[in-house]
Amino acid sequence: MSGNRKMKAVVKHRRGFGAELQSVDVPTISDNEVLIKVKATSICGTDVHIYKWDEWSESRVKPPYIFGHEFSGEVVEIGAKVSNVEVGDSVSAETHLVCGSCPQCLTGKAHICQNTKIIGVDTHGCFAEYVALPAGNLWKNPKDMPYDVASIQEPMGNAVHTVLAGDVAGKTVAIIGCGPIGIMAVGVAKAAGAARVLAFDLNEYRLDLAKKMGATTIINSKEEDPLEVVEVLTGGNGVDVVCEMSGHPIALNQGFKMVTNGGRMSILSLPVRPVEIDITNDIVFKGITVQGITGRKMFETWQQVSALIHSGQVDVSPIITHHLPLEEFEKGFELMIEGNCGKVVLHP
Amino acid sequence: MSGNRKMKAVVKHRRGFGAELQSVDVPTISDNEVLIKVKATSICGTDVHIYKWDEWSESRVKPPYIFGHEFSGEVVEIGAKVSNVEVGDSVSAETHLVCGSCPQCLTGKAHICQNTKIIGVDTHGCFAEYVALPAGNLWKNPKDMPYDVASIQEPMGNAVHTVLAGDVAGKTVAIIGCGPIGIMAVGVAKAAGAARVLAFDLNEYRLDLAKKMGATTIINSKEEDPLEVVEVLTGGNGVDVVCEMSGHPIALNQGFKMVTNGGRMSILSLPVRPVEIDITNDIVFKGITVQGITGRKMFETWQQVSALIHSGQVDVSPIITHHLPLEEFEKGFELMIEGNCGKVVLHP
Amino acid sequence: MSGNRKMKAVVKHRRGFGAELQSVDVPTISDNEVLIKVKATSICGTDVHIYKWDEWSESRVKPPYIFGHEFSGEVVEIGAKVSNVEVGDSVSAETHLVCGSCPQCLTGKAHICQNTKIIGVDTHGCFAEYVALPAGNLWKNPKDMPYDVASIQEPMGNAVHTVLAGDVAGKTVAIIGCGPIGIMAVGVAKAAGAARVLAFDLNEYRLDLAKKMGATTIINSKEEDPLEVVEVLTGGNGVDVVCEMSGHPIALNQGFKMVTNGGRMSILSLPVRPVEIDITNDIVFKGITVQGITGRKMFETWQQVSALIHSGQVDVSPIITHHLPLEEFEKGFELMIEGNCGKVVLHP
Amino acid sequence: MSGNRKMKAVVKHRRGFGAELQSVDVPTISDNEVLIKVKATSICGTDVHIYKWDEWSESRVKPPYIFGHEFSGEVVEIGAKVSNVEVGDSVSAETHLVCGSCPQCLTGKAHICQNTKIIGVDTHGCFAEYVALPAGNLWKNPKDMPYDVASIQEPMGNAVHTVLAGDVAGKTVAIIGCGPIGIMAVGVAKAAGAARVLAFDLNEYRLDLAKKMGATTIINSKEEDPLEVVEVLTGGNGVDVVCEMSGHPIALNQGFKMVTNGGRMSILSLPVRPVEIDITNDIVFKGITVQGITGRKMFETWQQVSALIHSGQVDVSPIITHHLPLEEFEKGFELMIEGNCGKVVLHP
Repeated sequence: MSGNRKMKAVVKHRRGFGAELQSVDVPTISDNEVLIKVKATSICGTDVHIYKWDEWSESRVKPPYIFGHEFSGEVVEIGAKVSNVEVGDSVSAETHLVCGSCPQCLTGKAHICQNTKIIGVDTHGCFAEYVALPAGNLWKNPKDMPYDVASIQEPMGNAVHTVLAGDVAGKTVAIIGCGPIGIMAVGVAKAAGAARVLAFDLNEYRLDLAKKMGATTIINSKEEDPLEVVEVLTGGNGVDVVCEMSGHPIALNQGFKMVTNGGRMSILSLPVRPVEIDITNDIVFKGITVQGITGRKMFETWQQVSALIHSGQVDVSPIITHHLPLEEFEKGFELMIEGNCGKVVLHP
Repeated sequence: MSGNRKMKAVVKHRRGFGAELQSVDVPTISDNEVLIKVKATSICGTDVHIYKWDEWSESRVKPPYIFGHEFSGEVVEIGAKVSNVEVGDSVSAETHLVCGSCPQCLTGKAHICQNTKIIGVDTHGCFAEYVALPAGNLWKNPKDMPYDVASIQEPMGNAVHTVLAGDVAGKTVAIIGCGPIGIMAVGVAKAAGAARVLAFDLNEYRLDLAKKMGATTIINSKEEDPLEVVEVLTGGNGVDVVCEMSGHPIALNQGFKMVTNGGRMSILSLPVRPVEIDITNDIVFKGITVQGITGRKMFETWQQVSALIHSGQVDVSPIITHHLPLEEFEKGFELMIEGNCGKVVLHP
Repeated sequence: MSGNRKMKAVVKHRRGFGAELQSVDVPTISDNEVLIKVKATSICGTDVHIYKWDEWSESRVKPPYIFGHEFSGEVVEIGAKVSNVEVGDSVSAETHLVCGSCPQCLTGKAHICQNTKIIGVDTHGCFAEYVALPAGNLWKNPKDMPYDVASIQEPMGNAVHTVLAGDVAGKTVAIIGCGPIGIMAVGVAKAAGAARVLAFDLNEYRLDLAKKMGATTIINSKEEDPLEVVEVLTGGNGVDVVCEMSGHPIALNQGFKMVTNGGRMSILSLPVRPVEIDITNDIVFKGITVQGITGRKMFETWQQVSALIHSGQVDVSPIITHHLPLEEFEKGFELMIEGNCGKVVLHP
Repeated sequence: MSGNRKMKAVVKHRRGFGAELQSVDVPTISDNEVLIKVKATSICGTDVHIYKWDEWSESRVKPPYIFGHEFSGEVVEIGAKVSNVEVGDSVSAETHLVCGSCPQCLTGKAHICQNTKIIGVDTHGCFAEYVALPAGNLWKNPKDMPYDVASIQEPMGNAVHTVLAGDVAGKTVAIIGCGPIGIMAVGVAKAAGAARVLAFDLNEYRLDLAKKMGATTIINSKEEDPLEVVEVLTGGNGVDVVCEMSGHPIALNQGFKMVTNGGRMSILSLPVRPVEIDITNDIVFKGITVQGITGRKMFETWQQVSALIHSGQVDVSPIITHHLPLEEFEKGFELMIEGNCGKVVLHP
């Protein structure tokens, strides 16, 4: 496949709001890389940050480049040294490009590699007809997994990594923040045997999705006091597990207040600035465990995600609320900014 | 309540086969005890051993006494120092009477107390209208949990203890042996997110129950080679988790052969004699973990059981296949001996 | 033993600074209690708070009463129902009086009981010739363990609980704050195989004790930048484990900054007010685990403490820097307030 | 470096007893390989099996080839794509060559890769002046670690993997079998805080080495009944952890009998045939955990080994009992066969 061939791609073309559909060269691959024809690619909150060009993007991202990192596609060409996938395979990809030699990479914790680069943030991504990626980052999908479902495995991996970072069977689990990963987390908690799944958000559309994914109670934190609801529902004991996905300092502190003694608080969210925490009363005296969760375990989380979806234990179909052709990416970003959506999937 | 009052009880009356319905004194209670009116009591495999009077019973059990240990009932009287339950409460009971002072009891492992006595084996049990028990062994049931369901929580605890002794979400789990605890284990594995649950037995009635409880594949080991089935279903990888509940040396070794490298083999069964194991190839080179499972964690397992049932995550109704008045206990034992049943519940 | 007998006791006699030596009745015991002749009792930081009468004391403590909770002594009388100790035994005691029936107590986490009372804070303590305690709180000491050593097992338990809340063998461990528990933690980390133990404090006397207990590097945080020291010593990787025992917001945040990706931050300290934490960069992106540590696991931690001391793996003798007769308690408190001491042991 | 250069190598030259010193070509390297000048290479039990040509060797090994796999050396040439080591580095190597794509490799358990090949067994090894190895298998040694010490890190890794497969601080640990890895395990258990380390063997020379490495009790199982010794020393409780390194069915069963309820039995040994185990009484009723241990976690175990040695927590010098020039390899093998030695190090 020659570099002269052209393809459509959504390019972050400049340091500022927006992005542009361009015709660019189809990428070429080296010996350890694979060329994939993108079949479905979903929009992540990170993509929205880049699109809107916030403070974080300004400091990290270097336009022009193709962004996007959640996808599924078909392998169309493999490098000379690639043996883990074949032409025709359906694949998705782990987004973290890791160094392989730092202490974390050497001890099975590559997802927190000290030198992580991110596809679609630090390198070209998948908002395009084709993407070239290192073979080692690919994950092979079951032949019968629909491409749109396969494309959202990456964010689903965040949900799985968070929820399954400890036991949930028979427990009471709170999901704080019902963005797409939050509602996935609801489904994962339910599938993994949680006795009760309490979903908190301010947005009724998203709470409704949480309900569809199996939340046993949905709480609009604008209308009900989250701590009172927990107090009543748990007879004063509090919840066993909190999955914090809101990033909001008030909600985050509510999470710390509602977790029972010895409970678990797993934080996937990224508060934009430091948060005041009552360490003495909310962490030490309660003897809780707080976990920072980032990325997906490579590739334990991918195995779990694939198995949970493929077995039917988690039905992700309610989560994919919108399908658009790649060309209508702007409409997709508008939906995401406005918030009344689950996952938005683009089809190149 | 006076000791002069009489009640019906199924008494293991002699050193030999069978048992007898007798009229005996209603028990009296001490300061730390509770008197319970038995509402439902289910027959355990252990009760069958005692009924049939096998080698083990001969060495352990001292007739005459009331046997039985799985039950639910209503608190009708509490001792002067009892504060954890009240008259009117629905309760079940942990069967292990533990010493409280051995190293295991002192470190949260009371279920493997060095000085364990068992209700209905070493002391009077619950095949009766009333039973007197130490308050510390009682477990309070939700008001709306039916008595028959509540009575089978004790064996369900064995299933939960076995299945949840490690992760199962997204994994392939084999249940070897589909007696009542085995089929409960199927339901627990499914509820806790197992991607595949393979159930093995020789009895079609029980395999059918396993199917009803959610097994994704049922294998009659007389008709299909278990290892070949696993080979095909897992593409040669083997299963992630084996719950061994058959006690049969061949099935047990099949379990060791079918577990994947790094997998888990949790053994609840009690083989009647030592078993030859290929430690080098089946344990060491594969780097697996073998767990002996006995009793229920006190009371972590009870919390899990109660929550899994009460939340509807596990529907145990297909497991309770027979209801009988206490007087017809002989029919119940016949059913159990013959094997074409799930749990048999007696109602005093 | 009659209640008419008198004994010396250090009584928190009023709501204000100080305490008073008084002659009070020797306590009487109930059926489940034990009377102990106190042989050695050490002063805890909590006792200093009560002595100085700070904000916390004002809200919690109800004078007049006997305070103090770290001790060892000889059993001189046992209640009618006590079977775990005998007259003549050397004992110490777990300080947490727990309810036994909350979800935490029922699941092996009694140290975070929802209804914890504390000996010497909420009930009469051990700054006296005799103390009466529930048998269930006693810990039997080896016959040949010196009484002064036995008396400091309770705070040593905090150190053990913190350090051994995860692996340390072959790891780099930072102990932030070298009060008595901090220097004990140094000894525990060293005994448990830590490759490097970095001890941080502002007080040279205490850093010198840390050195004696086996710290491989001592850092005076006034004179050296803790983060620079860690950067150089670990080649930029950071430390694997931080035990936070300072309670100071700056030191605590340094702890969060110095821990490596995937590392562990175990917090025993009690910051007096909420602390700002950079959750995104210091917890989430690094994928660390933060543990709140309180009390001692009942009684797993006691087993560990006793074994580590009795085996000689930890030599606590450098930690006990001062011995005083009970009558000179004021001198003991002065030493503690001033800070140039390890443990101060009072002998009634 | 040209393939025409010659080097000395100990070659397994034929299917039968013994080996031969030969002059062979210095190996050439590919892009991802490294050429190492061997400085020290120690003899493993596996090498002895190959030397003696037992049943296992016959089925696995394909002479002629260079055997040996424990070593340290200096990097003298690196392939074009190698970036993790440089010429001049001191290195050792992980012996397992893994596939990188089986479920185990993909989930941080590469040490139990389904397609493992072993250096010096399935490929050319290090009993030579030079060895060529994949860069990904190398482990960089601290500059000041002596070459003989560095060469025994690989078997030390087996000891560390076994002992640290669970907690040992404050516990009673039994090491059954005091071959070189057994005595290393003694040192590791001691360094990691074990309160008591009981070492069992039949050979006084090796028991003496166990004593030097810190065993608190050595037991010659020919002269004392191991179970009686444990009974007395532990007041009937049994040991907390058994590290089984003998492979002998009687010793192995003694291990199962001596472990306390809830204890851990970690098996590194490779019994030559299936062993009868009393699963009911020794595994299930006791609720113990049995672990198969193979290889070294890649590379967590290597980090631990390097740190424990380099920090001085484990002094391995008593373990290296013999140094010989490579040419005298036959004398080395005689020592190993006879058994009165620790590690025998050959110097090319």
